[in-house]
Amino acid sequence: MDIAWQDIRHVTKVDPAKPLPDDPGVIADTDLVIVGGSDDVTETNTLAAVRAIDDIAPDLPIFQEPYSATQVSTDTIDAVDSIAVPAVYNGDRDNFVGKHLDLFTEIARKPDELAGSSVPLVGDLVASTGVDAVAELATKLIGEGYVVQHLDSAAASVSGVETTYTPDQVAGAALATETFYDFPIFYVEYSGTYGGPKDVTAAARYLDETVLLYGGGIDTREKATAILEAGADAIVVGDCFHDDPDTYRETIPPRA
Amino acid sequence: MDIAWQDIRHVTKVDPAKPLPDDPGVIADTDLVIVGGSDDVTETNTLAAVRAIDDIAPDLPIFQEPYSATQVSTDTIDAVDSIAVPAVYNGDRDNFVGKHLDLFTEIARKPDELAGSSVPLVGDLVASTGVDAVAELATKLIGEGYVVQHLDSAAASVSGVETTYTPDQVAGAALATETFYDFPIFYVEYSGTYGGPKDVTAAARYLDETVLLYGGGIDTREKATAILEAGADAIVVGDCFHDDPDTYRETIPPRA
Repeated sequence: MDIAWQDIRHVTKVDPAKPLPDDPGVIADTDLVIVGGSDDVTETNTLAAVRAIDDIAPDLPIFQEPYSATQVSTDTIDAVDSIAVPAVYNGDRDNFVGKHLDLFTEIARKPDELAGSSVPLVGDLVASTGVDAVAELATKLIGEGYVVQHLDSAAASVSGVETTYTPDQVAGAALATETFYDFPIFYVEYSGTYGGPKDVTAAARYLDETVLLYGGGIDTREKATAILEAGADAIVVGDCFHDDPDTYRETIPPRA
Repeated sequence: MDIAWQDIRHVTKVDPAKPLPDDPGVIADTDLVIVGGSDDVTETNTLAAVRAIDDIAPDLPIFQEPYSATQVSTDTIDAVDSIAVPAVYNGDRDNFVGKHLDLFTEIARKPDELAGSSVPLVGDLVASTGVDAVAELATKLIGEGYVVQHLDSAAASVSGVETTYTPDQVAGAALATETFYDFPIFYVEYSGTYGGPKDVTAAARYLDETVLLYGGGIDTREKATAILEAGADAIVVGDCFHDDPDTYRETIPPRA
């Protein structure tokens, strides 16, 4: 991953199951795009969204953030800079390690055993390039240590999240990410509601090499500033990109 | 961790709940000691075992491998080179991420909130050195990606393991360790029974920076050689150190 994180303050999450706004060109002012959602995401609509964004702003880095391996293919892998795979600390086993192991087992499986694989990723990969591509593919998959803090959200529902974390637990998850699981990204996700800076403050204290992202309910310049000043490397804005371009523009920090 | 893994071929797992053998000096010929067990392990017997081994062979690197935070204290941390914390891929959520988050949350908690902590580790640490030591402590904790392959073992029981992995799944767990969770060690644990080289062969294919350990049922030179030739960086021998020094000696590979 050759992402210049020090230049990234504003991330746009594009839901491929939603239409782009009437004026999609506003996205050129963000610093990074993550394509992913929690409902009705497919490999096809992911690829369409990635290509539409790439047409508008060819230099923007784009990540795919799948919640199922069926959304990933050699086409999506080729089209994006990284496949960012959430590992949800306060989710169920399946969403921290279970689905991941199934995916890596598919990837690791020997080519001669792969005929008929149900995962497009692997079948296509092996058909096209053989087992030598496995290590290269795996390096394109990066982990995001997630904490989902809004129980009444699709993100919580698809991740098996039944309890939110206290700021102390968020700090513990951040420290574990930095020193134990070594994911390059730690993500505080309030999905649709504004959580304020307290979790970011708690997490930032223990993050050095790990990038800290906050997403959820940012719809003013003040909220964006509060989260960045609390120690987030970048804010993630989603809903208003699709729904409200004026608000979206306001969340983009002024260039230094 | 300044361990010269390229020189480590033979690891001895010392169970602190068992007495040392009559001739404990045989341990001087192993390359690394891991102090840990699955029953009746305490901070006190761990520390006694570590100190006894250190008296016999002061240059031997020693890890503590706890299964509960209550076995860890500032004394054990000071006495060993690393605290190796198992993350069991085929175990339950608690044994891959749950207990770990509780531990890191304790470590990360602010000093002024720590009065009365039930974890000796943290209470002692903060009393002695304050929050500045947190990052240093955390770096002494290293992860071991574990696969426990013997269902009828205490290791499986304490880890919530209900199914073993196929060699394909072991390869997937190895690849995930190398590229996603980034634990420095991948450990195939047959705990008390000999599993043969098949899982080691499957895992070794996808491990480069990760150290591959195999433990379980090694009681002859031939078994030791078979596992090492299959690609393990080192074999782990436990039972026979306590029970059968002649067999133990035979498992130690000749020096190159």
